[in-house]
Amino acid sequence: MTETVAERRARLMGPNVPTFYRSPVHIQRGDGVWLWDKDGKRYLDCYNNVAHVGHCHPRVVQAICAQAATLNTHTRYHHDLVLDYIERLTATLDHGISQAIMVCTGSEANDLALRMAQAVTGKTGIIATDNTYHGNTAAVSQLSTRRPPIGGRAPNVRLVPAPEALHPLGGSRAAQAQTFADNVARAIAELQAEGFGFSAIMLCPVFANEGLLAPEPGFLGPTVAVVRKAGGLILCDEVQPGFGRVGSHFWGHDALGFAPDVVTVGKPMANGHPVAACLARPDVMAAFRDAFGYFNTFGGNPVSAAACLATLDVIEEEGLQARAAQTSAYLMERLRALRHGRIADVRAAGLFFGVEFAGDGAGEFVADLVEDMVAAGFLLNRIGRNGATLKMRPPMPFGPEHADLLADALQQALDKR
Amino acid sequence: MTETVAERRARLMGPNVPTFYRSPVHIQRGDGVWLWDKDGKRYLDCYNNVAHVGHCHPRVVQAICAQAATLNTHTRYHHDLVLDYIERLTATLDHGISQAIMVCTGSEANDLALRMAQAVTGKTGIIATDNTYHGNTAAVSQLSTRRPPIGGRAPNVRLVPAPEALHPLGGSRAAQAQTFADNVARAIAELQAEGFGFSAIMLCPVFANEGLLAPEPGFLGPTVAVVRKAGGLILCDEVQPGFGRVGSHFWGHDALGFAPDVVTVGKPMANGHPVAACLARPDVMAAFRDAFGYFNTFGGNPVSAAACLATLDVIEEEGLQARAAQTSAYLMERLRALRHGRIADVRAAGLFFGVEFAGDGAGEFVADLVEDMVAAGFLLNRIGRNGATLKMRPPMPFGPEHADLLADALQQALDKR
Repeated sequence: MTETVAERRARLMGPNVPTFYRSPVHIQRGDGVWLWDKDGKRYLDCYNNVAHVGHCHPRVVQAICAQAATLNTHTRYHHDLVLDYIERLTATLDHGISQAIMVCTGSEANDLALRMAQAVTGKTGIIATDNTYHGNTAAVSQLSTRRPPIGGRAPNVRLVPAPEALHPLGGSRAAQAQTFADNVARAIAELQAEGFGFSAIMLCPVFANEGLLAPEPGFLGPTVAVVRKAGGLILCDEVQPGFGRVGSHFWGHDALGFAPDVVTVGKPMANGHPVAACLARPDVMAAFRDAFGYFNTFGGNPVSAAACLATLDVIEEEGLQARAAQTSAYLMERLRALRHGRIADVRAAGLFFGVEFAGDGAGEFVADLVEDMVAAGFLLNRIGRNGATLKMRPPMPFGPEHADLLADALQQALDKR
Repeated sequence: MTETVAERRARLMGPNVPTFYRSPVHIQRGDGVWLWDKDGKRYLDCYNNVAHVGHCHPRVVQAICAQAATLNTHTRYHHDLVLDYIERLTATLDHGISQAIMVCTGSEANDLALRMAQAVTGKTGIIATDNTYHGNTAAVSQLSTRRPPIGGRAPNVRLVPAPEALHPLGGSRAAQAQTFADNVARAIAELQAEGFGFSAIMLCPVFANEGLLAPEPGFLGPTVAVVRKAGGLILCDEVQPGFGRVGSHFWGHDALGFAPDVVTVGKPMANGHPVAACLARPDVMAAFRDAFGYFNTFGGNPVSAAACLATLDVIEEEGLQARAAQTSAYLMERLRALRHGRIADVRAAGLFFGVEFAGDGAGEFVADLVEDMVAAGFLLNRIGRNGATLKMRPPMPFGPEHADLLADALQQALDKR
């Protein structure tokens, strides 16, 4: 008997290792917005944000090759590339955020952000939403709701109800921003009453994992006011919206119109090379560096810096932020025109789309739809409570021509259900 | 006024970012055991274990280039390379350790190891030594003694006195193994009395950060017995000794002769590409996977797996483990022949050397010696309490010809002091 790949994975990686789709795809090759499996079947990648400027972009590959052949050390020696990169990256950020700690994963970046808030405030209370994910370290996984931690959640963590598009907090979209802020204020009061005090709220500005709320500018105004009044920090997880994906702006928080104290970035930063960063104002960085020792061996190594710089080059030179805005508008038009009785809401934050379905068993309906689409050669997935929202978050070179392929295939799949 | 690199670092990275040496070196290029700074000055690398098979090894560079140009995704799709690698890596491990979770840094691997122990035992008490470092996540940094965490150390962590070569626990090297075990037993009893219970001890088998004890086989026998009796796990941090560095064996724990429950690996694993892993027996992995959800976006991606496989290829094909053993014996002979009144001990764990100096101001003496050696074109550093131990841990292709250069330069530097 030949061992299947799934069996081999279970033998070598253990049980419960997540894969996508009922029949996991075995991807072998990538180019731009396209992926091919081991049998040569081609898929339009409507999902992967890590390959931000397109799978195997030659510019990024070349930068990695050239630097890996020249030098790969660490930041305990001087090197220009990591400084060149932090200089260019922070130039895209406003709000006085001008310094960075380079790490390897978004989880490491968020783990640091929590300690930055602790260093600044001297408090430990943390707030996140009750339907999110910010990473997988022991500390950061406390903020994730996918599975409660063994032994229960840490007492210094409060999860407030996540805002939603179809069932908004407070009963209406108009009331939701204030209701969310009121819940944050209540959580702060609890943390203070219990002696933890309040250090920070960690948020994705477009509420990506919560089902992609894609809120309007100003939505977080009342929450920011509540946080500021309590002396806490805004930790802005830009792992999904950042690097131009939201289209209108380079950063999600600028699209929303608020000033974070700490910004964390990861996945798309170097088109798949493992690198991430925690960015902050000098006063926040100084408080952290005064309170904690920190060094990351791989973080900011010359190869990572070269990959990061090349990714920024491509975003700028290929105009990918503007392209995201254009494709977003075009695909939204196509998605709004989809015909199916279960479609309840269509929304986007730039090149990040959610189509929410309603009715009994909506989550199962979307799960089946996802499988149909994979069979048809389109990779996408679902999010939100009950997984009733179809999630599309393609590489940034995804254009109107790909949007048409996707929308046509979606309508065909919907017609059969 | 032109901004210096140090000033630029402070502006972009913040204060207190660690560099090596009083005048940090600005490294530009690497090849094998050699590094060149921006002025073309050549250094013999006697320090960097990350560039395990030599700086910019063409085989690893080529593997990274080829795979980066073909596909770089994640383990939610099937792919063979990550499985090929785990299969080959676990084949080097005994003690039933046959499964792995691929991550990006040793810190992430150790952060996972702590949760594995928690999942298996249902307890949270953790023991490490009082002069060590196992990583930089919020959870793992609790085990590091470089700087106590803000707000104090977590109450479930106990740091026991680190064994030492010159001032052994219990007053003699013969007594030290038992005294160390007795202290672990006392810490376990305390954790149990305080309600945390005992989950695990985390140890580097050669006590690298503690000053490179490089203990004899069997040293940890009494400690392992104490841990087993209490139902705890041995989490073996092989980030420094692993991958053949100890020379006599592929793994440090096999050189010492004990069976760990979890093995963590990092830095040298892919010659500088950011990858690490947490390896365990299937029963430990199953307990973890049952208790915690875990996915790491970059962990085990095809490029990382290709870099890991190429690094293993080079270790095997170039016979680097045997070379480490040979060079170790040769350089130890040379180090033992060094003439200086302050030299108190010379020890090695394969291609990892410590020369400990004694007397008033020994730490300062070694600090000055390190600077002299850097000026002479040799990169090394110091470890141990007061930093009185000269630390040499070169890339694995370091051979007798390099050992001669190093020993000659050391004697010259010592002659001047």
